[in-house]
Amino acid sequence: MHEKPRVIIIGAGFGGMFAAKALAGKAVDVLLIDRNNFHTFTPLLYQVATSALDPSEIAYPVRRIFQRAENVRVLLGELTAIDHLGRTITLRNENQEYSEAYDYLILAAGSTPAYFGHERFKQHALDLRTLGDAVELRNHILRAFERAVWETHESRRRQLTTIVVVGGGPTGIETAGAIHELYNHVLDKEFPQRNLQARVVLVEMAPELLGNFPEKLRKAALEQLQDVGVEVRLGIPVVDVGPELVKLSDGTDIEAGTLVWAAGAQASPVGELLGVELASLGRVPVEGTMQVKGRERIYALGDMVYLEGPDGAPYPMLSPVAIQQGELAVANILADIAGRRQNEFVYNDRGIMATIGRSKAVAWLYNRIPLRGYIAWVVWLVFHLISLIGFRNRLNVIVNWMWNYFTYDRSVRIILEQAQSKELRRK
Amino acid sequence: MHEKPRVIIIGAGFGGMFAAKALAGKAVDVLLIDRNNFHTFTPLLYQVATSALDPSEIAYPVRRIFQRAENVRVLLGELTAIDHLGRTITLRNENQEYSEAYDYLILAAGSTPAYFGHERFKQHALDLRTLGDAVELRNHILRAFERAVWETHESRRRQLTTIVVVGGGPTGIETAGAIHELYNHVLDKEFPQRNLQARVVLVEMAPELLGNFPEKLRKAALEQLQDVGVEVRLGIPVVDVGPELVKLSDGTDIEAGTLVWAAGAQASPVGELLGVELASLGRVPVEGTMQVKGRERIYALGDMVYLEGPDGAPYPMLSPVAIQQGELAVANILADIAGRRQNEFVYNDRGIMATIGRSKAVAWLYNRIPLRGYIAWVVWLVFHLISLIGFRNRLNVIVNWMWNYFTYDRSVRIILEQAQSKELRRK
Repeated sequence: MHEKPRVIIIGAGFGGMFAAKALAGKAVDVLLIDRNNFHTFTPLLYQVATSALDPSEIAYPVRRIFQRAENVRVLLGELTAIDHLGRTITLRNENQEYSEAYDYLILAAGSTPAYFGHERFKQHALDLRTLGDAVELRNHILRAFERAVWETHESRRRQLTTIVVVGGGPTGIETAGAIHELYNHVLDKEFPQRNLQARVVLVEMAPELLGNFPEKLRKAALEQLQDVGVEVRLGIPVVDVGPELVKLSDGTDIEAGTLVWAAGAQASPVGELLGVELASLGRVPVEGTMQVKGRERIYALGDMVYLEGPDGAPYPMLSPVAIQQGELAVANILADIAGRRQNEFVYNDRGIMATIGRSKAVAWLYNRIPLRGYIAWVVWLVFHLISLIGFRNRLNVIVNWMWNYFTYDRSVRIILEQAQSKELRRK
Repeated sequence: MHEKPRVIIIGAGFGGMFAAKALAGKAVDVLLIDRNNFHTFTPLLYQVATSALDPSEIAYPVRRIFQRAENVRVLLGELTAIDHLGRTITLRNENQEYSEAYDYLILAAGSTPAYFGHERFKQHALDLRTLGDAVELRNHILRAFERAVWETHESRRRQLTTIVVVGGGPTGIETAGAIHELYNHVLDKEFPQRNLQARVVLVEMAPELLGNFPEKLRKAALEQLQDVGVEVRLGIPVVDVGPELVKLSDGTDIEAGTLVWAAGAQASPVGELLGVELASLGRVPVEGTMQVKGRERIYALGDMVYLEGPDGAPYPMLSPVAIQQGELAVANILADIAGRRQNEFVYNDRGIMATIGRSKAVAWLYNRIPLRGYIAWVVWLVFHLISLIGFRNRLNVIVNWMWNYFTYDRSVRIILEQAQSKELRRK
């Protein structure tokens, strides 16, 4: 049907994009499909949400990345069905649907926020998984302050300027720290009318923050957060959520205008299209070669798969894992085409980090070097800058970071609530 | 009621913002009200619409501008009523309403797109007056290309990649030129599948472009536009508009996926709250002192007012006019407070310009120096860069302009169609 074997990749996140990059120039035809026309550098979403960076600075047009790769085609669309016997997938874009045949399929659809059985919390919470989420959170936070200025009742004013972040992992910590900085170093100067005070509460059900980090870094993170001024509540699950209200297991009610849900993630629902039995959090069980168990010529990787590491625990949902799995999946597909043996996944763990605020961070490099404070923060900055795609993005991010650092300003704090497109309004 | 006289300014566009700046530090209390929390540098909206700049690079937080001005307060809200006898206005923000008393009121609410009796064209056309409009147009253009890739019928594909811009003034010309550049120097490389060709048509009902410019610059603009590849249709009004269809008076039907309406502007409806008889295009008649005729202590300025110049024609809707009128209104209010005589408006016209594309522009400086081509383009760049507010914005814009110039790239071309906020969804 095709002269060259055809590889279809679903998802242009870290895993899918690195897989497509690894296939560029190889003797295969590649079709890369995503719902968005851009790749999102998700580790910096919280900076968009807190007005430190522009959305486009952490987004990069997918077509641009593969402009010069003649064997890679890009298509905007959503996967709606997989026919693994006929080796065909069905895609939808707006109202159109069509089918594409594949020789190899790579699923790299990532994850979505997990509410762990409390799905109804969703309607009152803000997520931070997509660029759209980040802009929505930015608008929400800035609008809450503008509302507070109008408010004559002090209790209501306090409610509007209280934010609860649920989740003590890197996303929760970074978001809580950055929001606190935005509230108490930037916005406080600009709302002199009512003497607005902001309160940021970080809630984590486990007894400690940053479960994956060694003991002393967990402590360092807690101290740095408290030093910044964030209230940290550990070992206390959220038991209920209402409009502008968060109820904790210890009986505390927090009246909060903003609730950010960063408590965890589950696999993308794309895995359900495979018709195989899924593991915990909806993850797709894969072999060490990244092949989906029981499905020929289908590979899956990243946040959406369940693969146990040497310690028996599944690999965590981290971008380096997805990137390395994407590269392995490609190597194995090329090996399979050439009739060579496929290899098993071995994770090269270069470390984990989380930043808390100005000159505050923790890093755990190569599972043996612990860093904290200023040095960890510099390592964090340099690493993220290097990982960003696009020279223009890096330059703009440097400008903004330096600007923010020296001026204590956040220039991107505009409330741009977009109307629905005309087309949608007409319907 | 107040110790110091209280001045309320409606609108943080060019006129209102410069008025507020002129009042900063003076012996008055100032309340500056806008619907947005940012000032928009409208001359560069078309660059946001064509993926050359980020929205926040041409937007600047109003509160930031007046962070150090202790006598200037900023409030997000919309004017809903003026009680000129009681010297009170009514404001609304979301569901709340309240009243504010003034000693002097400055109306600087600007303008909105004019459809000149063809209001029904509106539902099929895209405007380019606000930052939201610009983002919507950007999404629309990029999405049309992504749709065209899916399309198997060639005629439909051609329709999706055809854009009609109505209006031969600076906005229309700049938009048409920039869209053509985006289409035929950036996107064409990235959509290899279907060999997509884009067509940009500029329609103007007058027999010439840029009515305010001298003859030879009008010609130069036309030649430069045609040189770029834009089809220009002069002396041909649009007679009807349908979904993806534009009908011209000469019987031509253009099937176009995108229609940009840049045919003109009318005064903001805020003028209607005054209860005075309005001039053409809904403009508020003012004295030479910028006082609203028949309304004490109310000043109005900029796009929303009707004031004749020495040649008997009303001053055009241009930002330098609004800025100078804003500064005069403030001087006159301070004169009135001090019991001094108020002055009449004299426009210091430094010129008009329009850019067509890379190294292509026309400028008419001080009503006597005509410039065209590369030199006009450089003057345009420098002038707009200087006029931008905020050092960070200028730096980012320089980075992006240099990037775009040398790489023929537009890095900001992300389709970020925002969902409605959770709050709105809940309602």
